[in-house]
Amino acid sequence: MAPELSVAEQAALTSGRDAWHTTPVESAGIPAITVTDGPHGVRLTANPADMLRGQPATCFPPAVATASTWDPVLLWRMGEALGEECRSMDVAVLLGPGINLKRSPLGGRNFEYFSEDPLLAGVLATQWVLGLQSHDVGATVKHFAVNNQETDRMRISADVDERTLREMYLRAFHRVVTQARPWTMMCAYNKINGVYASQDPWLLTQVLRDEWGYEGVIMSDWGAVADRVAAVAAGLDLTMPGPDNGGDKALESAVDDGGLDKVLLARNAARVAALVDKAAARRPFSYDRDAHHALAREIAGRAIVLLKNDALPGDERGLLPLDPAAAGSIAVLGEFARTPRYQGGGSSLMNPTRLDNALDEITASTSATVRFAPGYTVSDGLGDAAEAGQDQDLLAQAAALAGDSDVALVFVGSEHETEGADRTGIDLPAAHLALIEQVTRANPRTVVILSNGAVLATTPWDAAVPALIEGWLLGQAGGGAIADVLFGRVNPSGRLAETIPLKLADHPSYLDFPGEHGHVRYSDGLYVGYRGFDSRELEVAYPFGFGLSYTTFGYGEASAVSGEHGLEVRVPVTNTGERDGREVVQLYLSLPDSAVTRARRELKAFASVDIEAGQTVEVTLTVARDDLAYWDIRLDRWVVEGGEYHCHVGASSRDLRATAVVTVAGDEIRIPLTADSTLGEWLEDPRGAQAIGQVFGGLAGEDSPMAAFFADPTMMMFLRATPLSRMGNFQGSPLTPETIAKLVAAAND
Amino acid sequence: MAPELSVAEQAALTSGRDAWHTTPVESAGIPAITVTDGPHGVRLTANPADMLRGQPATCFPPAVATASTWDPVLLWRMGEALGEECRSMDVAVLLGPGINLKRSPLGGRNFEYFSEDPLLAGVLATQWVLGLQSHDVGATVKHFAVNNQETDRMRISADVDERTLREMYLRAFHRVVTQARPWTMMCAYNKINGVYASQDPWLLTQVLRDEWGYEGVIMSDWGAVADRVAAVAAGLDLTMPGPDNGGDKALESAVDDGGLDKVLLARNAARVAALVDKAAARRPFSYDRDAHHALAREIAGRAIVLLKNDALPGDERGLLPLDPAAAGSIAVLGEFARTPRYQGGGSSLMNPTRLDNALDEITASTSATVRFAPGYTVSDGLGDAAEAGQDQDLLAQAAALAGDSDVALVFVGSEHETEGADRTGIDLPAAHLALIEQVTRANPRTVVILSNGAVLATTPWDAAVPALIEGWLLGQAGGGAIADVLFGRVNPSGRLAETIPLKLADHPSYLDFPGEHGHVRYSDGLYVGYRGFDSRELEVAYPFGFGLSYTTFGYGEASAVSGEHGLEVRVPVTNTGERDGREVVQLYLSLPDSAVTRARRELKAFASVDIEAGQTVEVTLTVARDDLAYWDIRLDRWVVEGGEYHCHVGASSRDLRATAVVTVAGDEIRIPLTADSTLGEWLEDPRGAQAIGQVFGGLAGEDSPMAAFFADPTMMMFLRATPLSRMGNFQGSPLTPETIAKLVAAAND
Repeated sequence: MAPELSVAEQAALTSGRDAWHTTPVESAGIPAITVTDGPHGVRLTANPADMLRGQPATCFPPAVATASTWDPVLLWRMGEALGEECRSMDVAVLLGPGINLKRSPLGGRNFEYFSEDPLLAGVLATQWVLGLQSHDVGATVKHFAVNNQETDRMRISADVDERTLREMYLRAFHRVVTQARPWTMMCAYNKINGVYASQDPWLLTQVLRDEWGYEGVIMSDWGAVADRVAAVAAGLDLTMPGPDNGGDKALESAVDDGGLDKVLLARNAARVAALVDKAAARRPFSYDRDAHHALAREIAGRAIVLLKNDALPGDERGLLPLDPAAAGSIAVLGEFARTPRYQGGGSSLMNPTRLDNALDEITASTSATVRFAPGYTVSDGLGDAAEAGQDQDLLAQAAALAGDSDVALVFVGSEHETEGADRTGIDLPAAHLALIEQVTRANPRTVVILSNGAVLATTPWDAAVPALIEGWLLGQAGGGAIADVLFGRVNPSGRLAETIPLKLADHPSYLDFPGEHGHVRYSDGLYVGYRGFDSRELEVAYPFGFGLSYTTFGYGEASAVSGEHGLEVRVPVTNTGERDGREVVQLYLSLPDSAVTRARRELKAFASVDIEAGQTVEVTLTVARDDLAYWDIRLDRWVVEGGEYHCHVGASSRDLRATAVVTVAGDEIRIPLTADSTLGEWLEDPRGAQAIGQVFGGLAGEDSPMAAFFADPTMMMFLRATPLSRMGNFQGSPLTPETIAKLVAAAND
Repeated sequence: MAPELSVAEQAALTSGRDAWHTTPVESAGIPAITVTDGPHGVRLTANPADMLRGQPATCFPPAVATASTWDPVLLWRMGEALGEECRSMDVAVLLGPGINLKRSPLGGRNFEYFSEDPLLAGVLATQWVLGLQSHDVGATVKHFAVNNQETDRMRISADVDERTLREMYLRAFHRVVTQARPWTMMCAYNKINGVYASQDPWLLTQVLRDEWGYEGVIMSDWGAVADRVAAVAAGLDLTMPGPDNGGDKALESAVDDGGLDKVLLARNAARVAALVDKAAARRPFSYDRDAHHALAREIAGRAIVLLKNDALPGDERGLLPLDPAAAGSIAVLGEFARTPRYQGGGSSLMNPTRLDNALDEITASTSATVRFAPGYTVSDGLGDAAEAGQDQDLLAQAAALAGDSDVALVFVGSEHETEGADRTGIDLPAAHLALIEQVTRANPRTVVILSNGAVLATTPWDAAVPALIEGWLLGQAGGGAIADVLFGRVNPSGRLAETIPLKLADHPSYLDFPGEHGHVRYSDGLYVGYRGFDSRELEVAYPFGFGLSYTTFGYGEASAVSGEHGLEVRVPVTNTGERDGREVVQLYLSLPDSAVTRARRELKAFASVDIEAGQTVEVTLTVARDDLAYWDIRLDRWVVEGGEYHCHVGASSRDLRATAVVTVAGDEIRIPLTADSTLGEWLEDPRGAQAIGQVFGGLAGEDSPMAAFFADPTMMMFLRATPLSRMGNFQGSPLTPETIAKLVAAAND
């Protein structure tokens, strides 16, 4: 279709008509389609002049929460429900999921992203996309790539070495692209190693299209394109928002004067036209608001992570769950119980169909007397920019109520997480810390429930708190989900998708976030999140993968087999408690004798498994051979290293319950010998050693400095590290450039 | 003189005649001169066929020890004595000092380098060079630059950002070059950001010559030149060793065919000729071996760092010093007491004029009965490649002797430090750990004396040891120096020039040393050594700058004044004990509200001060304004930031005794506004804000999306971070490219 378009029409088609629509080309019968945010709900604009206010739709839990479920099936169901809502609102493309790594706990959009681990992010996002696209609604995987901070986000260069880029920052994208075939991808605002993602031919064309085989539409983030002609040349199909009349004209001129190959523009226009065509398959739908609210509650309940549940002196079991039938009194404290923090700010901010709060849901769940005190003030009822205010009277009221109740539930959390601004720290607001301190002093039977879009420090105050719930941002039904967990209707099975450090200064990213003067050094390299903490043996507050249950699980012996397609690890897991529950079984691999730098262990598979009390389930974890590979910068490709892989099965990155060792056959690699190869490298290679032997063989009997070198262990140590080409400098060396050329030919022919 | 030479003669003059001589040009009356290793003694070859065995000369303490004196005057005296020995052996250029930073405790040549801090290294090396050159003997400052590891040392690329390069890895070189004018510099083997140091025009010409005004000879490290023509073009004067006939011929051809400007080669040859000429001023000399041995002992005594000196239960004072007049028995344990570890391996390895050992010196120092047991075996009497062997009988003998003595002195240390090989860990050999464990169990009155060229872990075994002496490698008179400290003839004043961490995994360099596949990422950036530990608030075993004395020092209030030329900080320091002593007073600066990333504190001045018991000395510490600057990558130059500098005076980086706050006026800087500047940057600049106001002023009353953006706080947050050039994408934006061009002109004219 597109080849029939004029250059002007092609240019118009490759930028938006406005903020939320593609440009129609009536002459060619190409209609506009609607694209809209966002990852956890359909934020279809209610008024064209107001980019950020949407029509009501279900606000599902943001990615920070869904990632904690570690359950791909749940993500598929959420994507599927979003597809229904898109169809009901005539949305063709939903701008999500966001799958960037949480490099730093300070990242302002962390609440929209999944994890510090690329496997977890990739597996979950794949199912979300498949669920959504099962309704003929397109997903937009974003922000491609290395978009891990808000500070100077439209210019910052993420300076990152290629191995880290491949293994950490591109790996989740690769998985989703190849396994879910998303209709669209959104390029990031930032530069990577000095080049804007929007105009990076290596990223958009070489990696995404040529290596990964991506055939969908690549669109820009809103306002990300700095040079439209360069962007088209690099492989960007659709510039958003629009209209970008100046850019359209620049494209036309560039095609006219030969600065841009017209084939490139035609190809981009054809891709956009194909997207519009594909979207036409979508049929209207009317979704069930109540069912979606219930699904949002189910997901939220599965996302909650029980961090601590100690028994108080005299009690037999942990403080939680609370008995719904118990009489007595419950103090619900903290404004967040009444005015929930349930989503973050920016482009993903939803107008929910309804909004539950924990106070009402708790009250409805118990026969006890429930009393509330706000404890502190918040400045914004939407919860997206709440600033906690300390008020001594509110504090005193809350403490008094706690002291006068059988149990105290304290709702605290972060004040503010939003697109556009990174956080400056990970501490709770002073007003919240004061509330925890005073309440725990008044009543040791205290449960703290956190609401936050990214990691908060829990040290040292959690020492005084017997029960601690990480409630993240749980979407519109989070209040009910919290009550479900508190009263045991849901047995918690959420697991941390990001490490909670003891302090910010311990974090691998601490000294180089968010960078300055246009550059941020990815100095943590491969050692993002738990990879860094574990490799440095640093103590943490709660490790990656951690989460408690109201039951307990026992692990049997693990076994592992290695085959052509990868690894399979089996382990029996038993619910050793008295309550049905769900365990997230995690597989971490390590290769202790690796020839390359590696994190101490890496997540390579996981399974979320329902296990009835007393039952045992045989869990099988599989790792595709590709997931064993590291990126070799000498060969510029993935390589599976051979060796004895240690397969650690466990309940967190630091709670390894069983280990099986399996031998993996490595890929065959050979690094060619050159004049720049060292004498040591020549001698280690059979053909190299033979060639060298012929040249130096005669030296043994000679009385030359070179012969003396070969006889001296210290000199030999030096020579082994010397490139052949450099040995010509030493007196008596037979290594002329001509000799070296012959050696290279002999060794590599 | 050199212009009269033929191209062939010029080429010959710019490579060595052999390993230790320049090439003579008899026709021009240019003789050969002798250059030889090394930094802590004159290693003049005894036999041309044996590069590494030298004639006897004084083996002074290696730099790891001299740095611990923190005393520039002592370094001058050592340089001066080396000048005498060079004159006596007809050496024109001595290949030292080595001033690379100790990026990792594993660096194989750390024993030849000074510190993890560039100020300390630079100040000490400056005086060493001035002392040496006072005898008309040339110094060679090496290895320029970023030569901080042995692994793959001839090819590795040190990948380091420019600010780190300037502030950390080049800073000591800058100081020595500008303050001591060394006759020669030696370029490093390695690459920096992919370019060989030997052929890097930025490093050798732009920075060293053009920015720093260096006029001496730049020579290569031995075998460092990979491409002679490229090296000459980059500014390298002298390729070593030689003869490099192939290279000479390549230069001639390149001059012939225009590939190399003949002026460059002529200039290099002229510099070498000038060096030879300068060396002719040197007159023969006969030095006093005994006096030099005594100086070596004095320096060694000043280098020893007393790390721990606890009182045992029932004692009033620390275990040390031992009373020389006391009767009783002393057990001297460990082969190193008899066979000292006193230097490292490789090109600096000396043939000493004599060699003291601690056992004899202790025996001669006391009226007590001294008995010895080796405790373990060593495989090499030279001490440069000793491998400790564990032997259960020796261990048992030593423990028995300890149990049967009044005090036990345990000599242990590292097995091996050498040029050419990095270490693989920082733990003591198992045989030494076993000796410490068994001896301390047999006798709690144990002193451990360490001999090592680089940091060793002291945790956890030091908890059982009341007294711990860090004895480094102390040169040929170290045995006497250890006895001097043990018996109190020398009151220890050495201070750590490198942090002793709790474990290697804590070190800032841990995850990226020594790199792989030809690259090492300097991921620790500015945060080398204590800068990293302090900035991350990591616990350490013994901090940078730490060292005990047999007396104590009290600090009064500090005062600071700021002037055009820098800062002056004054503090009274009192010897509050009963023994004369020496305190190293350290000044650390911090700028808590800095607009740029900085280490928590940085050493900016220090003074080694003799203070008699009971006396107070007013110590003045000055910081040149240049030393306050950071390297600004936007402006590509040094900038002094204005603000309130906290001047912490103390006895280590973690023992800050007094603080004065002083306001420093910053350099005037203005970053020009461009189309790539964000709206926020425009609005923060007075002229920018005025220009923007004129364009957007009319929007207030309009009903356009742009006007709506300006009225919405969230959108305004997004827009403030948006480059002007990108705002054209948004509907209703008046920012056409033409308008932006006018704005840029208006803001900057």
